[in-house]
Amino acid sequence: MRNIKLTIEYDGTNYHGFQRQTDNLPTIQQVLEESLEKLLKHHVTVSGAGRTDAGVHARGQVVNFHTGSSIPTERFVYAVNGLLPEDIVASSVEEVDETFHAQFSAKGKVYKYHIYNNQVPSVFDRLYSYHVPQELDIAKMLEAAAFIVGRHDFTAFRAAASTARTSVRTIHRLEIVHIPPHIYLTVEGDGFLYNMVRIITGTLIYVGKGKLTPKDVQNFVESGNREEAGPTVPPQGLCLMEVKY
Amino acid sequence: MRNIKLTIEYDGTNYHGFQRQTDNLPTIQQVLEESLEKLLKHHVTVSGAGRTDAGVHARGQVVNFHTGSSIPTERFVYAVNGLLPEDIVASSVEEVDETFHAQFSAKGKVYKYHIYNNQVPSVFDRLYSYHVPQELDIAKMLEAAAFIVGRHDFTAFRAAASTARTSVRTIHRLEIVHIPPHIYLTVEGDGFLYNMVRIITGTLIYVGKGKLTPKDVQNFVESGNREEAGPTVPPQGLCLMEVKY
Repeated sequence: MRNIKLTIEYDGTNYHGFQRQTDNLPTIQQVLEESLEKLLKHHVTVSGAGRTDAGVHARGQVVNFHTGSSIPTERFVYAVNGLLPEDIVASSVEEVDETFHAQFSAKGKVYKYHIYNNQVPSVFDRLYSYHVPQELDIAKMLEAAAFIVGRHDFTAFRAAASTARTSVRTIHRLEIVHIPPHIYLTVEGDGFLYNMVRIITGTLIYVGKGKLTPKDVQNFVESGNREEAGPTVPPQGLCLMEVKY
Repeated sequence: MRNIKLTIEYDGTNYHGFQRQTDNLPTIQQVLEESLEKLLKHHVTVSGAGRTDAGVHARGQVVNFHTGSSIPTERFVYAVNGLLPEDIVASSVEEVDETFHAQFSAKGKVYKYHIYNNQVPSVFDRLYSYHVPQELDIAKMLEAAAFIVGRHDFTAFRAAASTARTSVRTIHRLEIVHIPPHIYLTVEGDGFLYNMVRIITGTLIYVGKGKLTPKDVQNFVESGNREEAGPTVPPQGLCLMEVKY
């Protein structure tokens, strides 16, 4: 059996997240598996590196699956894109070692959150950003972000539904790039708790609005009190950019 | 009566063009008029600078309409955006002289056409660009574009359905910017025939593919033979950027 690593891009707008649902709502995994089954003529189960939520996008999601098919690797991307709907695209493919697993072999992930910071909303970014009309203090947000970088217990930044055994994670980098009217938060870490990037972003927006101080954020990182951190911002601003192996 | 000039942005994906249709299909004009009527409490007819086709977008469409309402100009954008769907946004407003007419006062328009030039299609640009997987010779396209700039009879670049009395137009500028994998064609002119920007783009893409030469394009501009020019490229790559007064 060959082990195939596939990198995919998708617009999450019309999907109920990555992971296949029992209630037959359309998901990325389901549509991807159906296309692969048409191509490979056998049952396929893909493992995804990250279970992106409903409405979340991806530019560099990685999946792997096994096949006995002899379809040449270099023809694979073209063939599967002919079967996928236009909001899911395979961007590259690689045949990998049998030990590779998209989720368990991942050493880290990079997410980007896009804030559209303008009084008037954007027509063209509306499906790919979160509109914040109020002015934000970027310098304060950068100051707060520095406290989040590093190895911490991120209990304050996990959703109640999170089932992870431990909430200790390492954030390697948290960049804030301001190209008015856009603000891009790029977060790289060894792993993320449920909703963690969206809660970090919501907290930093609160800092930008003056509802929280950078010092408050330092306290959340130390105390782990979810009650006090900022809100979970909406999914459409979030994009899984890259999975590191 | 006050004469109001409104600049709007819209995502044309879900509309049957700008102009109101008799068959009640959703159009930008209809939705805009309905929102303005809710706000102003009287019947409103807007005049648009350009009748963009189904699927064509706008960042700088201009309309004007008359009202007796005393709503302050500076509150207008906010108020109307609260009533418009999220794929139409009013970006600015101005009270103008009674002689101003969005279409007849226009001195020129700027359109941009976005080509996504990459082997693998783009998920995020799919609604806002035209996917061309083949390699294009940009130098040749630039050479051909130079023949289009100027005052010419554009019979070769008008759709059969065009009803304009004369096909003489002046193209002030035709820029091609290549930021791989994107190619942006910006065309500024004193007026445009039906489908003219899309036929110019289709012709330049044919030049990029080697199906036509820059010399052929020079001949079309001189001979006016529509049969020989390139195809009309799809609407979703086109955007009305600005109307000049």
